[in-house]
Amino acid sequence: MLANFDRLIDRRGTHSSKWDAMEPLFGVSSDDGLAMWTADSDYPTAPCVIEAVRAAADPGIFGYFFDDSDYHNAICWWMEHRHGWKIDPDWILTSAGLGNAIGLCLDVYTDPGDSVVIFSPVYHEFANKIERAGRQVREIPLVLADTRYEIDLDAAQAQLTGAEKMLIWCSPQNPSGRIWSADELRAVAEFARANDLILLSDEVHHDLIMPGHRFVPLNVAAPEARDRLVVLTAASKTFNIAGQRTGNMIIPDAALRDAMLKRMKALDLSSNRLGVEMVTAAYSPEGAAWVDAQVAHLNRNRETFDTMINAIPGVRSLPLESTYLAWVDFSGTGMSFAEVEERVKGRARIAASPGPAFGQGGETFLRFNLATQHARVDMAGARLQEAFSDLQ
Amino acid sequence: MLANFDRLIDRRGTHSSKWDAMEPLFGVSSDDGLAMWTADSDYPTAPCVIEAVRAAADPGIFGYFFDDSDYHNAICWWMEHRHGWKIDPDWILTSAGLGNAIGLCLDVYTDPGDSVVIFSPVYHEFANKIERAGRQVREIPLVLADTRYEIDLDAAQAQLTGAEKMLIWCSPQNPSGRIWSADELRAVAEFARANDLILLSDEVHHDLIMPGHRFVPLNVAAPEARDRLVVLTAASKTFNIAGQRTGNMIIPDAALRDAMLKRMKALDLSSNRLGVEMVTAAYSPEGAAWVDAQVAHLNRNRETFDTMINAIPGVRSLPLESTYLAWVDFSGTGMSFAEVEERVKGRARIAASPGPAFGQGGETFLRFNLATQHARVDMAGARLQEAFSDLQ
Ligand SMILES: Cc1ncc(COP(=O)(O)O)c(C=O)c1O
Ligand SMILES: Cc1ncc(COP(=O)(O)O)c(C=O)c1O
Repeated sequence: MLANFDRLIDRRGTHSSKWDAMEPLFGVSSDDGLAMWTADSDYPTAPCVIEAVRAAADPGIFGYFFDDSDYHNAICWWMEHRHGWKIDPDWILTSAGLGNAIGLCLDVYTDPGDSVVIFSPVYHEFANKIERAGRQVREIPLVLADTRYEIDLDAAQAQLTGAEKMLIWCSPQNPSGRIWSADELRAVAEFARANDLILLSDEVHHDLIMPGHRFVPLNVAAPEARDRLVVLTAASKTFNIAGQRTGNMIIPDAALRDAMLKRMKALDLSSNRLGVEMVTAAYSPEGAAWVDAQVAHLNRNRETFDTMINAIPGVRSLPLESTYLAWVDFSGTGMSFAEVEERVKGRARIAASPGPAFGQGGETFLRFNLATQHARVDMAGARLQEAFSDLQ
Repeated sequence: MLANFDRLIDRRGTHSSKWDAMEPLFGVSSDDGLAMWTADSDYPTAPCVIEAVRAAADPGIFGYFFDDSDYHNAICWWMEHRHGWKIDPDWILTSAGLGNAIGLCLDVYTDPGDSVVIFSPVYHEFANKIERAGRQVREIPLVLADTRYEIDLDAAQAQLTGAEKMLIWCSPQNPSGRIWSADELRAVAEFARANDLILLSDEVHHDLIMPGHRFVPLNVAAPEARDRLVVLTAASKTFNIAGQRTGNMIIPDAALRDAMLKRMKALDLSSNRLGVEMVTAAYSPEGAAWVDAQVAHLNRNRETFDTMINAIPGVRSLPLESTYLAWVDFSGTGMSFAEVEERVKGRARIAASPGPAFGQGGETFLRFNLATQHARVDMAGARLQEAFSDLQ
């Protein structure tokens, strides 16, 4: 049952958004293009998760599901053993993925016209979802100090108008993989309290932590924030099962939870059977061992990628503390972003996520997804060196 | 690949709502109780659907899904070849099951305080969902003429107040299995037009049609209703995959569809990968052959059940035109409903859905789910005869 993250798999023609939408969206030919944009992985999920799918095929009865205590207990086990956060099974509600969870939180906890605070650059869908919900984006730039983002909460405070009702916080941060310290999290919690904001902490990237770093859940750092806190986690990134649309909303406060439950009942949103069975299987000792192996793989990919990228004059990849999303700054090349994109898509034949979509601070960046085989990372590095070889 | 609907399967302890929630909800012991309530089946889904699950386990990559044209084409094929309704793939939106579809339609097409018309007795969740959405239920009783329900639209018209915005129509009808004729459907469409109601036609039971009967989709009977029509169908009942939470909303009108799409985008509701793959496999020639075999099985169950039940003085099972939900009237026994329920649950050890939950007209009924092995139907008949043997 050894994981092999390096077995080359051709995902073209498998209903893979990352690979099959690459050509229509980026104009990068699927003949020899490398898909390094959307956040899923090019290797299979953990054997225990695959086993759960096979096991469901055996009775082959997919009727109405009853009793999610195994499922909730698995989530509790994972949160306690992997993250040191003891949660109550009753706190867990299941969303159809975390995008859905964010949409539901905006719907339930804010009203049309309210403002929602985000710190940019950040996962582009935060701003998109706030806008689609008819709310206002209050975007506050992080400060890039050398190679790490810092939060300037005084500057943030000065930008609030009083219309803000929620803060969507990304921890670890997508992009950049920045892991926030307990002190930083406490300051963010205090900022939310002082401004009476619902604090939505999106912790989906919490499992893929690079060696030498430690992730702290917001509720562990700042238990006092509990009465305004909604935490989002999922097995989707960690286990490459995002297509199964199954996410966790962890809501310790009873009143906040009841409001969400009421809305979910009215919309009759309930979890899908195979999603639940896959997550239950994932959040296990076998799943944990597989994640450890995956992190070692990603760390090797990261080292190779950073070494090759940072050898290009004027290009630097921020050191990745977590996740598989390398955040690369091309500003030192002196080129326009259009020129950078043209070279990456046209010469290097790589589809990477454009930094400007992540908001202020992303103008000169591209985000590269490293959750693939090491050979593909190596190839990407070589192609990028070649595409910018005139800078050598 | 022959289907065997009679192989006894013990669903206890398999996260089956029907079997595992029976004891807590009905007080019928799972030791020897028969679960004949909630609407799923006790036999496996079609081999082609199981094969789709197995096939997904093989690459074992469950990332973001792209391109639902195969899926939409399969739905179109099914609607045309099984129901004679040619639909456009663009009309199809995917909900997380039909309960979710109903909740979304209430949310998108009506406002708090509006009234929604239903014809009772009908699937109890219609009224529940209308109430959970903060809308008013305008319940209009069907007329039981001998053993068939009829619609009295003049009486219905007299009960409207002008606050009505939507009609939720169940075709075929749950409970009772009544199939509406093209003329009846045209009259309902005209009623919706005359009162400017959105017409939500829940056709989920359309596939299980007993020999000698013919189902007509509302849009085929009344194409002129198209500008106010939302049709719900699903493979969930037909193929016993309700736990996968995947339903079809078929919306021919572009403005109605855009309003729904906008809301679904804001809530980021998208289909789950395995659900889509299972439905795509189901809606195929292989799936169709399996459904035909299932209908023959259900028809045999129905004959056995009706013969045994109708032999009990004062009890009659309405002739089932479609579905597997036998609707049984105990009024002729002269017993109180409490006494009837006590005998069915206590003496016959059967969990059946209580008629009063289906609204006016259901007061003296119980609904029995016959989607099980023939031996269990036979056993249920024998137990019910025994439980009411003093009436012989
Ligand atoms: C921070 C963050 N939140 C949410 C999501 C989306 O999660 P889901 O696929 O469950 O909608 C992503 C995906 O990249 C993400 O990076
Ligand atoms: C008429 C009708 N509509 C909807 C549903 C619920 O469907 P779903 O399981 O897809 O929510 C049922 C289930 O019994 C039903 O009978």
